[in-house]
Amino acid sequence: MNITLEQAQAAIKAAQQKAGEIDVPMNIAIVDSGANLKAFARMDGAWLGSVDIAIKKAETARYFDMDTGEIGKISQPGESLYGIEHSNGGLITFPGGVPIKSADGEIIGAIGVSGGQVEQDHEVATFGMNAVK
Amino acid sequence: MNITLEQAQAAIKAAQQKAGEIDVPMNIAIVDSGANLKAFARMDGAWLGSVDIAIKKAETARYFDMDTGEIGKISQPGESLYGIEHSNGGLITFPGGVPIKSADGEIIGAIGVSGGQVEQDHEVATFGMNAVK
Amino acid sequence: MNITLEQAQAAIKAAQQKAGEIDVPMNIAIVDSGANLKAFARMDGAWLGSVDIAIKKAETARYFDMDTGEIGKISQPGESLYGIEHSNGGLITFPGGVPIKSADGEIIGAIGVSGGQVEQDHEVATFGMNAVK
Amino acid sequence: MNITLEQAQAAIKAAQQKAGEIDVPMNIAIVDSGANLKAFARMDGAWLGSVDIAIKKAETARYFDMDTGEIGKISQPGESLYGIEHSNGGLITFPGGVPIKSADGEIIGAIGVSGGQVEQDHEVATFGMNAVK
Repeated sequence: MNITLEQAQAAIKAAQQKAGEIDVPMNIAIVDSGANLKAFARMDGAWLGSVDIAIKKAETARYFDMDTGEIGKISQPGESLYGIEHSNGGLITFPGGVPIKSADGEIIGAIGVSGGQVEQDHEVATFGMNAVK
Repeated sequence: MNITLEQAQAAIKAAQQKAGEIDVPMNIAIVDSGANLKAFARMDGAWLGSVDIAIKKAETARYFDMDTGEIGKISQPGESLYGIEHSNGGLITFPGGVPIKSADGEIIGAIGVSGGQVEQDHEVATFGMNAVK
Repeated sequence: MNITLEQAQAAIKAAQQKAGEIDVPMNIAIVDSGANLKAFARMDGAWLGSVDIAIKKAETARYFDMDTGEIGKISQPGESLYGIEHSNGGLITFPGGVPIKSADGEIIGAIGVSGGQVEQDHEVATFGMNAVK
Repeated sequence: MNITLEQAQAAIKAAQQKAGEIDVPMNIAIVDSGANLKAFARMDGAWLGSVDIAIKKAETARYFDMDTGEIGKISQPGESLYGIEHSNGGLITFPGGVPIKSADGEIIGAIGVSGGQVEQDHEVATFGMNAVK
């Protein structure tokens, strides 16, 4: 199963709304179950450098089927996956990437958000993810 | 001046609608005046390989402020810009990329569409471009 | 739907057998419906440079849901998709890449073969594709 | 001397079997003595991001003729090879890559495994390596 464009655009719309509420312009990317880009939006005033980061966060979350922040914890110096960010053309391993599941629990894609503090990015990504029905 | 996300999403919405009318699922990308990705949508069933092509068409149209098909004409073997597609990490020089202008004629971004015949891509891109007010 | 490893390995086994019959060592790559590598084999004596070509042929066939040779025809100088090979990090647009369909006609992946004349590559790829049930 | 495809496929088959026993779907890559891809398999349900990691582990193990985990120890911050992962288009320096030797002790290739805990990856890689006669 794969995320539809309607679902992806619903996630982006929700994420934009949440980003507006906390007043932080964000880049928001959605990939499908094959980790291929499905939808994207850069809010007015959001960092240009976060285009790539938002996309990489979404890819990373789908590559390993977990929140990007979790990968960050286990890839610190001395930890088991130290250096993993050198794979796949560059991963982003701090918070803001979250897998998206279907109603029956299958992973159908992922959302990546970048533009604020990483906690804000994660909050907005989670809000967007929850908008997918 | 720069395209806003509202304008970019209006262009994508219009392009999706036109693509639906001609029954060809499309990838649609919008870049801003800095040639940086602003918004993107891949319609369900659209070619995976057209994600990159749609983005490169939008970039190419803004890089040179002309329709991508025009660049294609002057970059054929023997023509003056032969080989230009090797620049900028890869250009796409066939139709489907169109600059977007503001009401007063300033270029504020570009749209790139990929997924059908190049004439269809150009038609959908033009329709999306015209939706920007 | 997505190709399984069992199906992918059956395709490779069949392709290896056909390549052995025509006595041309081949590189054989299988990607899934998301164009991600699923299985690969390089026969003893096959060209090293064909590792990447076989993989790119499989990706290209899935990117556009058609035989790579078909893309080659419409991307010659003067044709509508001239220069398309500059997209997606490099396409291969000569024969040897073939989509793989499920029993009900859905594309579930693709096979790419490289190592011989392009007609031989296409023959071996088609034989491998037909081994998927 | 160089690993044969028969040997590489035997290593993959054994690694698949061991991965099945411990119930962790894995990506398994084999490179030859020239560090070029020889064979590959992604088990159903294995991480997409581990395609590249498995291949890079196999390459890394052959590049330096040692287990990837050993390279990880000497490339931590403050250690002598800190930053080595930036070479060769990206190395992977945590466990899961193991050189493969012929019966007379010559290195003929390497195996890289990714998909579980690094200890599991190393266990499966070692099991696959030992299947090469």
